[in-house]
Amino acid sequence: MGFQTGMMMDAPLTITAILRRAAQFFPEKEIVSRLNDGSIHRYTYADLYRRVIRLMHVLRNLGVKPGDRVATFAWNSYRHLELYFAVPCLGAILHTVNIRLFPEQLTYIFNHAEDRLIFADKSLAGLLTPLQSELKTVEGYVLMDDRGEAPAALPGPAWDYEELLASASDVEAFPCLDENMAASICYTSGTTGEPKGVLYTHRSLYLHTMACCMGDTMDIREREIVLPVVPMFHANAWGMPYACAMAGATQVLPGSHLFGKPLAELIERERVTIAAGVPTVWNLLYQYLQQHPHDLSRLKVILSGGSAVPRVLFENYTRDYGITMIQAWGMTEMSPLGSLCRLKASMEDWPEEQQLAVRMKQGIPTVNVEVKLLGEQGEELPWDGKQAGELAVRGPWVACAYYANADANAAFTQDGWFRTGDIATLDAHGYLEITDRKKDVIKSRGEWISSVDMENAVMGHPAVLEAAVVGRLDDLRGEAPVVYIVLRHPDQPLPPQEVLDVLKARFARWQLPRQTDIHVVASLPKTGVGKVDKKAIRRNLTE
Amino acid sequence: MGFQTGMMMDAPLTITAILRRAAQFFPEKEIVSRLNDGSIHRYTYADLYRRVIRLMHVLRNLGVKPGDRVATFAWNSYRHLELYFAVPCLGAILHTVNIRLFPEQLTYIFNHAEDRLIFADKSLAGLLTPLQSELKTVEGYVLMDDRGEAPAALPGPAWDYEELLASASDVEAFPCLDENMAASICYTSGTTGEPKGVLYTHRSLYLHTMACCMGDTMDIREREIVLPVVPMFHANAWGMPYACAMAGATQVLPGSHLFGKPLAELIERERVTIAAGVPTVWNLLYQYLQQHPHDLSRLKVILSGGSAVPRVLFENYTRDYGITMIQAWGMTEMSPLGSLCRLKASMEDWPEEQQLAVRMKQGIPTVNVEVKLLGEQGEELPWDGKQAGELAVRGPWVACAYYANADANAAFTQDGWFRTGDIATLDAHGYLEITDRKKDVIKSRGEWISSVDMENAVMGHPAVLEAAVVGRLDDLRGEAPVVYIVLRHPDQPLPPQEVLDVLKARFARWQLPRQTDIHVVASLPKTGVGKVDKKAIRRNLTE
Repeated sequence: MGFQTGMMMDAPLTITAILRRAAQFFPEKEIVSRLNDGSIHRYTYADLYRRVIRLMHVLRNLGVKPGDRVATFAWNSYRHLELYFAVPCLGAILHTVNIRLFPEQLTYIFNHAEDRLIFADKSLAGLLTPLQSELKTVEGYVLMDDRGEAPAALPGPAWDYEELLASASDVEAFPCLDENMAASICYTSGTTGEPKGVLYTHRSLYLHTMACCMGDTMDIREREIVLPVVPMFHANAWGMPYACAMAGATQVLPGSHLFGKPLAELIERERVTIAAGVPTVWNLLYQYLQQHPHDLSRLKVILSGGSAVPRVLFENYTRDYGITMIQAWGMTEMSPLGSLCRLKASMEDWPEEQQLAVRMKQGIPTVNVEVKLLGEQGEELPWDGKQAGELAVRGPWVACAYYANADANAAFTQDGWFRTGDIATLDAHGYLEITDRKKDVIKSRGEWISSVDMENAVMGHPAVLEAAVVGRLDDLRGEAPVVYIVLRHPDQPLPPQEVLDVLKARFARWQLPRQTDIHVVASLPKTGVGKVDKKAIRRNLTE
Repeated sequence: MGFQTGMMMDAPLTITAILRRAAQFFPEKEIVSRLNDGSIHRYTYADLYRRVIRLMHVLRNLGVKPGDRVATFAWNSYRHLELYFAVPCLGAILHTVNIRLFPEQLTYIFNHAEDRLIFADKSLAGLLTPLQSELKTVEGYVLMDDRGEAPAALPGPAWDYEELLASASDVEAFPCLDENMAASICYTSGTTGEPKGVLYTHRSLYLHTMACCMGDTMDIREREIVLPVVPMFHANAWGMPYACAMAGATQVLPGSHLFGKPLAELIERERVTIAAGVPTVWNLLYQYLQQHPHDLSRLKVILSGGSAVPRVLFENYTRDYGITMIQAWGMTEMSPLGSLCRLKASMEDWPEEQQLAVRMKQGIPTVNVEVKLLGEQGEELPWDGKQAGELAVRGPWVACAYYANADANAAFTQDGWFRTGDIATLDAHGYLEITDRKKDVIKSRGEWISSVDMENAVMGHPAVLEAAVVGRLDDLRGEAPVVYIVLRHPDQPLPPQEVLDVLKARFARWQLPRQTDIHVVASLPKTGVGKVDKKAIRRNLTE
């Protein structure tokens, strides 16, 4: 034995270790689930552990072997959480399927992942019924009674989750796992091409989980009561199910009740301290709270990601409720956490306006995420907060390829960095700001206009609920911005000149849209994960 | 490519990544060092980074190759911190040598580790001078001018640190490292046998660093100003040098000024928020502060470890300064963090007395540390807070063997667990309490008496500054406790009966020492790391 290799235990980083930690040190802590009929289910990590043991036997009994894919089609609830543990702890691969995808996308990914089983909430199973003849590898369905209405026709041969559990053994049987084994797979609902699968390892998820519990990232601790509004079928619910278990935090799982009233009630009654979800959720919640006051005094932090948080939302929550909105940025390809925006200590004394300018950025990359900015020729750009380039990332929880999808793998370059497709700046303090998706950037007179910046500016107008900006071909400028607006009160018209007045304060004359390119619409098209579907908007423009 | 292996980047966990993170995201944050003459040196992580680059070239120029050992013999200061990074980033192995060891121990470990170079503070180099002819592998010395007095004779051929740095290249040259490569080595000053070397890997140190930044462990964050009084030559300074760099926290390095007045001044002036060290340090600081008030209002948390914290110290700091003392437990074999004591949320409403009873335990094992309690036959004991057994641990930052020391490796059993040699209980909440070292436990009438419990009880008497309890052979009881007491005010005698009265409230009659076994002494013998040397006390007893 020489000195080259250290002499530390070869202890793998696995989902099993997270589960056991929760059961050993936090057996009394609660997992609270809201079911489809609005009722509340409560149990503890000790209960979770006992049921995961049984569920592992259920999976074995159904023939699931290490490496097999097991799909979920479910809301955030305790049964979904049980699958989050049981499938990877068995050495099999958890495939969390986005229930909001279109039928042809669902068919594509079930077949592409070659799922053997689908565990579906009863209230959602109807969405699968029409697909059944198309699914080539699925051998059966396990229905989870979430107190929702069952579909008229089941998707196929189906068992009841609770019946299977009741008859399964309760003897602990954890296989030895290697940390580089696959633990789960999630498909990006990419706005271009077919969905692309990202295959996480036990190691990548474990490191991500530790990072979520770090003070300067999500700061998930034992004392917190955490509400992931972000769905467990979307990017690992930003890592919260595992992070809460590792820390022993209480989890509050909202089921299908994601907006306004039920959310306000759940936060108040369960005394939630940290909530996480996309800006739309917080926008709608704020609207609701203005009309229907609730006691949100326990809620300290709202983590928001998925798209840029409008400035007015930061201001509203701070002013009216003393809640800090913290912006995070991530990608399915990154497990998903990439950066998170907290002020540095030196910024605590800054004027509010300057602090807000920092808070509107996506923040400092987390540990385990290395970043660089690439110019159009692939050259590295300086971190001056001005020069925008394509963001490239590297780290142990970043994908090195998509699963079985050679066409899409150009983003994973030979040099070991992943090209995110996001256009960003980095400033001297190390704060990242995503200015656009590469494909959404508007190139006018040879210069870039950030569609995200322009949307934020438009949303600063009090009459505006949502806004989207895309480019159209323009003979003179190359591309010119087109603005779509959804009004807060559709019966109160908004003259285009008012929008232009708002924009003039922030954009150069040559960057402004024409008056005739400012449109008020009833709604904006959305993708399966609730983001504005700019591809659809552009398609409309050219038709 | 199948599904068995996930598709995440193969990004190693290395000390280099920690260094680069500090330089990229926190270049402006400070490292403050107190030098031997009391003066203060300040610079930033950007400065540290530039000097580490040069130091790596210095090491290369001196012929250091990957796997080579480079020893440090220094107080906590910025140059020591530079070595913490430069040596492992080069693929070489940092050997932090405890300056308080006896000459024969020093000779043993320099030779055992086969160090090629020793980097020594000028004020400490004199301790090495007499060893020089004994050191078989050391090729040279690099002296670091800490503004201390240089020895009359140098230990051997010596270079000046700053001169070497000034003439070295400033071109970045980081080798690719594997995370399982050795990064550093530290010897336990074991009270039995020769010192034993623990060989850490980049991976183990990196995971340990992440854990130190988790909210429920040390909670090292960007906003903190951290004072490691625990020496950088002792168990990696509990992981603080790397954790501060990863988080971007300010580091305040106290040099040789570890007690009372200079510590109080440093905490006040640098507005320290978290300090870490052994109970003796905090006991002496408290004594000093009682006579000489200082503004310690910024200090929120004192992390204390190395030996049990007397109850009265918890009470004093909370009552007089609003400072929370948090007890941690660890071992050199564990990198060193094993557990840390924070109250669970449900305990926040408990009566103070009950909370204190929890705080006096060593707390919940951290992530990456699995624990079990073993009875005398090796059977696993329940977690009932009563049954005491030997604590066994497992995890990615626990040693799997001592370096080149087959004799000592019995503690590393075939089943993959490390027997700590600590006797402990675990309660239903998962809190660990170390009741004794296995060799210090007193076996009386076939039952165990915890020497630690009895010492704590004795130290509860206001006249007592320090206490040690060991067992002596006793015809009737097998072993009987013998109590040694150091008085706070040596001129005010303490009748043995008063000590017995204190003990009667907590111990059964058969457990009590005889009056004639209660001794007041001027001081207690200490080991090289400042712990009470019970082996020496027992030796005295039998002589």
